Amino acid sequence: MLTEAKMKSALQRYLDGFNQGDSEAITSLFADHAKIEDPVGGGQIIEGKEEIAAFYSRGVKLVKKLELDTPIRTSHGKSAAMAFTIHMEMDGKIVLIQAIDVMTFDESGKIIDMKAYHGPSNVLK
Amino acid sequence: MLTEAKMKSALQRYLDGFNQGDSEAITSLFADHAKIEDPVGGGQIIEGKEEIAAFYSRGVKLVKKLELDTPIRTSHGKSAAMAFTIHMEMDGKIVLIQAIDVMTFDESGKIIDMKAYHGPSNVLK
Repeated sequence: MLTEAKMKSALQRYLDGFNQGDSEAITSLFADHAKIEDPVGGGQIIEGKEEIAAFYSRGVKLVKKLELDTPIRTSHGKSAAMAFTIHMEMDGKIVLIQAIDVMTFDESGKIIDMKAYHGPSNVLK
Repeated sequence: MLTEAKMKSALQRYLDGFNQGDSEAITSLFADHAKIEDPVGGGQIIEGKEEIAAFYSRGVKLVKKLELDTPIRTSHGKSAAMAFTIHMEMDGKIVLIQAIDVMTFDESGKIIDMKAYHGPSNVLK
């Protein structure tokens, strides 16, 4: 059964996966046919295990740290959300991106949908 | 045209409306046929101006303060999100609820959809 504790644990493991540079650990959190929109409105949907694995394989190379800004939120349903700051290497320097991710889970605790909210004004140089 | 600045301003006015006890200011941010799910998974959808006005009229009486936890996030699309703490009066005492709200806008800058993410474990007594 999906619980708040399971959702919080998955979001924490997502952060840990980036902080340990372990893209396979991140990819393992997703269901086979999961969809990712990162960033929301960016015009690209990443779908399925293969695309997701490639996305996070690239991601961990660019992201130096993910830092949680305030405790993880869950819900009364199958979604949870977190606000965090991405420390990302771009053109040889570190930029900070302030993001909120919303993850929706299947009953087994795998992520089936992820949406990342950050706009140009959330990039701090 | 909808801009990041307009979305940020609307979310700030949402916070200000609660902090000033002004439910009409909050209701005025929503489009006529907007939908609210607060909390997500709570089993209730609030829809349309009349229900929304009643929801926030009750809300401002219970909420003593909304406190932004980290800067407002926007997106490359028509949605924005914010993490904040609700100081709510319940049975004569103040409880803190840690929430993330995601708002989606129409082109004119009115909110057409709001989802509030907080679960039982996000209530601090």
